[in-house]
Amino acid sequence: MVLETVPLAHYLFTRLRSLGADSIFGLPGDYNLRLLDHVEPAGLQWIGNCNELNAGYAADGYSRIKGIGALITTFGVGELSAVNAIAGAYSERAPVVHIVGTPPRAIQESRTCVHHTFKDGDFKHFDRIQEHVTVAHTVIKDCLSAPIEIDRVLQQCLLHSRPVRITIPDDMPGLDVDGARLRDSLVLPSVISQNSEAEALEAVLGRIYSSEKPLLLVDGESRFMGILDEVMSFVQRTDWPTFTTGFGKGLIDESIPNVHGVYKPCHKTLVDSCDLVIVFGPHYSTSNTYLGQTIPGKDVSIHVMPDSIKTNDNVFRDILAKHFLQRLLAVLDFAKISKHSLNLAITSENLTTTRTKDQEVTQRNGLWQRLSSFLQEGDIVLAETGTAGYAANDFILPRHARLFRPVTWLSIGYMLPAALGTSLSQRDMIHRGQYHRLSSARTVLLIGDGSFQQTAQELSTIIHHKLNVVVFLLNNDGYTIERCIHGRNQGYNGITHWRYLRAPAFFGAPEKGDYASHTWMVRTFGDLEAALTDENMVYGKGLRMVEIQLDRLDAPDQLLGWLDKQISKEQNV
Amino acid sequence: MVLETVPLAHYLFTRLRSLGADSIFGLPGDYNLRLLDHVEPAGLQWIGNCNELNAGYAADGYSRIKGIGALITTFGVGELSAVNAIAGAYSERAPVVHIVGTPPRAIQESRTCVHHTFKDGDFKHFDRIQEHVTVAHTVIKDCLSAPIEIDRVLQQCLLHSRPVRITIPDDMPGLDVDGARLRDSLVLPSVISQNSEAEALEAVLGRIYSSEKPLLLVDGESRFMGILDEVMSFVQRTDWPTFTTGFGKGLIDESIPNVHGVYKPCHKTLVDSCDLVIVFGPHYSTSNTYLGQTIPGKDVSIHVMPDSIKTNDNVFRDILAKHFLQRLLAVLDFAKISKHSLNLAITSENLTTTRTKDQEVTQRNGLWQRLSSFLQEGDIVLAETGTAGYAANDFILPRHARLFRPVTWLSIGYMLPAALGTSLSQRDMIHRGQYHRLSSARTVLLIGDGSFQQTAQELSTIIHHKLNVVVFLLNNDGYTIERCIHGRNQGYNGITHWRYLRAPAFFGAPEKGDYASHTWMVRTFGDLEAALTDENMVYGKGLRMVEIQLDRLDAPDQLLGWLDKQISKEQNV
Ligand SMILES: Cc1ncc(C[n+]2csc(CCOP(=O)(O)OP(=O)(O)O)c2C)c(N)n1
Ligand SMILES: Cc1ncc(C[n+]2csc(CCOP(=O)(O)OP(=O)(O)O)c2C)c(N)n1
Repeated sequence: MVLETVPLAHYLFTRLRSLGADSIFGLPGDYNLRLLDHVEPAGLQWIGNCNELNAGYAADGYSRIKGIGALITTFGVGELSAVNAIAGAYSERAPVVHIVGTPPRAIQESRTCVHHTFKDGDFKHFDRIQEHVTVAHTVIKDCLSAPIEIDRVLQQCLLHSRPVRITIPDDMPGLDVDGARLRDSLVLPSVISQNSEAEALEAVLGRIYSSEKPLLLVDGESRFMGILDEVMSFVQRTDWPTFTTGFGKGLIDESIPNVHGVYKPCHKTLVDSCDLVIVFGPHYSTSNTYLGQTIPGKDVSIHVMPDSIKTNDNVFRDILAKHFLQRLLAVLDFAKISKHSLNLAITSENLTTTRTKDQEVTQRNGLWQRLSSFLQEGDIVLAETGTAGYAANDFILPRHARLFRPVTWLSIGYMLPAALGTSLSQRDMIHRGQYHRLSSARTVLLIGDGSFQQTAQELSTIIHHKLNVVVFLLNNDGYTIERCIHGRNQGYNGITHWRYLRAPAFFGAPEKGDYASHTWMVRTFGDLEAALTDENMVYGKGLRMVEIQLDRLDAPDQLLGWLDKQISKEQNV
Repeated sequence: MVLETVPLAHYLFTRLRSLGADSIFGLPGDYNLRLLDHVEPAGLQWIGNCNELNAGYAADGYSRIKGIGALITTFGVGELSAVNAIAGAYSERAPVVHIVGTPPRAIQESRTCVHHTFKDGDFKHFDRIQEHVTVAHTVIKDCLSAPIEIDRVLQQCLLHSRPVRITIPDDMPGLDVDGARLRDSLVLPSVISQNSEAEALEAVLGRIYSSEKPLLLVDGESRFMGILDEVMSFVQRTDWPTFTTGFGKGLIDESIPNVHGVYKPCHKTLVDSCDLVIVFGPHYSTSNTYLGQTIPGKDVSIHVMPDSIKTNDNVFRDILAKHFLQRLLAVLDFAKISKHSLNLAITSENLTTTRTKDQEVTQRNGLWQRLSSFLQEGDIVLAETGTAGYAANDFILPRHARLFRPVTWLSIGYMLPAALGTSLSQRDMIHRGQYHRLSSARTVLLIGDGSFQQTAQELSTIIHHKLNVVVFLLNNDGYTIERCIHGRNQGYNGITHWRYLRAPAFFGAPEKGDYASHTWMVRTFGDLEAALTDENMVYGKGLRMVEIQLDRLDAPDQLLGWLDKQISKEQNV
């Protein structure tokens, strides 16, 4: 039998493409150049980044929207630069494929002391380092097993929605591998209906029918569990009061009346009075649960997890959540369930505050409400760790909007390259006709000055690819969130002073034409209004950037509470 | 007995200070804020960086000049961002101390799912990841062993000149530890005179006396071996022909007549004709040896290594190089050794090329020679991986100048933050009166546009601290060195276009006054001459930046050779 062959790299990139990666991020290096030759022939767009950490962040952002994201780096120096991004994807479950070009096999086998090594002839250090941040990895060494190995790790990536790593020696990208496998698309293991599923269903139905005051809580792991449609039906058909966590916010439509936004400590009494809380895709880190305050009581809650259903007295294992929810929706008698609603008419007390044109913008007197009303259908909103991330829980998101905010990893600098990733994913999905029937969409980034400085250069990639991105830079002269926590007057919470609004021009934005970038400086509400309604903002394309000048210690209420504690501690010393 | 106590963090910082770290790099994070409170009280200067990778690079640069460098990061997100920098320090032996603030002990012990974790209650992942890039680490857990542990890892750092890592839980920086230990300064284990030393001495003396055509080769590990004074005496007193490697360049005075610069493949016949090559501090990676071409023959060479002497038929172990060389210098009868010299009058053929004012600057027609003559006594010159790194081997370095060029790790983006580190080390040494009796000194950075984009933001820290740094940015529209290797016309070797000379203003340079930054754009030799002799360049302080516009495929000869190979390969397809 004569095999139908394709080059190894072509095999990999074709697989990625068919899983939904239309663009791929990364940087060249002398161990991956031959690999890169195959990117565009396989129909993928190459997005060259400024550095590898940024490439990792961008791939992560892309993957959370499109269901897969990939980056290519070079051996040692490149891959290790990206480790923190991969760790974040691991922590918060983003399906990122990290592809690394390594030295040719002959060099590795002869233990030659080449560059990008520790000069000890050991080529496995970087594999061992990255085992901690991947659910699977493969070190490609021969053409026979390569396609099988590639398929295996890609499956693991999708199954766990966590990063995997594939290393390819520089002598291999062009070698022939079995291409016939490509005829079958990559599928995940299918569901085995376990007895446990029926048992779980029975238990859950019992709890539902007996509940008088039920509640739904949508958390962020619902995304990769692929259950958002089922959850949405459940929310609509039960009409039960529904909250999300910060991680879950934006995953279900907030515009329907029984969806009340993020469950915050102020809602605790209400939630505690419920006798059933069904939690979809729980992700209980302290930073996603207001330091644990918003974890529902064990005895009232049912957890719908990626591969199990957890009630207070049982864990039903090996259950695929999607399948379970479909059956639940099919058998549940909606006529038999309790109805009740929460009295949450006024979600935000400040909404009615009136502001004059000359009044300075602050985080407490209406900045966030005004920005919230700026958001549009289909927007992807990224609010960076810092004061912005806190505030974003209060946004009222339009339909089909998605929100990225601090969840568990909280690495500052993530959101800017992630915005590159999400904006590209919007463009790629619009090209495929898969973005909510919209023909254009924005990515909106809200970021503190400190976080901006971490990865600012990736703005140049956003500019270069003419992406539709609006940046709100909160200039409060340093690390305000840290000042609230500790060391409010300490020098280490300060940063250097940049002339932020010069960023677009420095990073190469055109001076004229459709993609000329526009910038605005905001101090007062009049400035803010002018910026948000300017026609270049409203109808502009490409990058738009707004700098909002805020006081050093201006922060959302919760953070100000910490600050007050700090001050009273100092006074008691 | 009542103990004399000091806060734990104070202990650590006092030790660092007395080992020579006057400045410390890093970023705050909520797990290290209490640690940072102790930095300035211990007399260290805090240098806040834009991101942790840059902090790691800066600490590395600092350490290679001052003998120790340190950075502080926060748990998970911070430390992992720096991994690639630490790996580089490990590969090329820079004594970097990486201090990490971790969650309070109670949180770790209770396995609480806090932020910056994988939400699995395991707080050891990051320790295990970084074991691969450190020679020692300590996870501080109690006050009794803390000072002993700190001393232990600091000793290992100095002994091996490689990174170590110290983690301190957020509840511990202020706790009392035994401060009496601080009265004794930290010493390295002292030499045990082994029999092997006498044997080695005998063997080496025999070889020296019998040699008719000896040669010396100074490689880069000589630096941390602390043998530079002994090597310099040896070079001067033998008067033997001496080369360095790229890694060794700048470690000995190039202005004396028997020192001939870097041993390059063009010298191979000459070197091969020698019957003895004494190599100090060999570092034989392919990138430091012209792909192995300049490794001297086994049977003629004697290697002076950190803890052994290697001849062709023996390894004499457990010998401290410094002690050995001192004895060798004492017993060697210089009257009995052969004298010879190499005929290397014309080291560089292009030196006499005449250029007109309007002639465009290229790498082959004299750019590097002109830049070489710009260098001054005491300069630290950093030539980034890329075409600049290749060219720097041809510089003729003035007295007390030091050179950083690609050695083994070759991570692009390293040199810019490293320049921050070296420039600070110059300032700190001048303050201590330890910088060659100079009262001012420059750091000169030569960097390609691609590398610049990796870590450009750290310029803001250079500006903020008013450091005396001259940047030459080689704008050749992308990754020229990669274009020479493979894919000369491929899109992946391109980068986005920045308006580079706007960097100082964007990153906050003052518009007026002593530290106003100055910039120059260079296309022709006339422009270059004007920039290099401008009074703001010559007498200016702070940051000065020159952009040199070059052709995409303009490169030093060796790289052009690779390019030619690529072209002829394409033609043969
Ligand atoms: C990579 C990384 N380094 C450090 C931290 C610690 N950290 C968390 S928030 C923060 C400050 C953010 O400041 P900024 O972006 O200016 O936002 P602000 O709170 O001022 O609005 C820092 C340094 C982190 N989370 N990630
Ligand atoms: C962190 C890292 N990523 C990628 C590489 C691979 N690499 C080596 S040199 C180089 C290009 C350098 O380009 P530039 O700085 O513009 O210098 P030029 O060769 O153009 O003068 C690249 C991408 C690397 N060495 N380190």
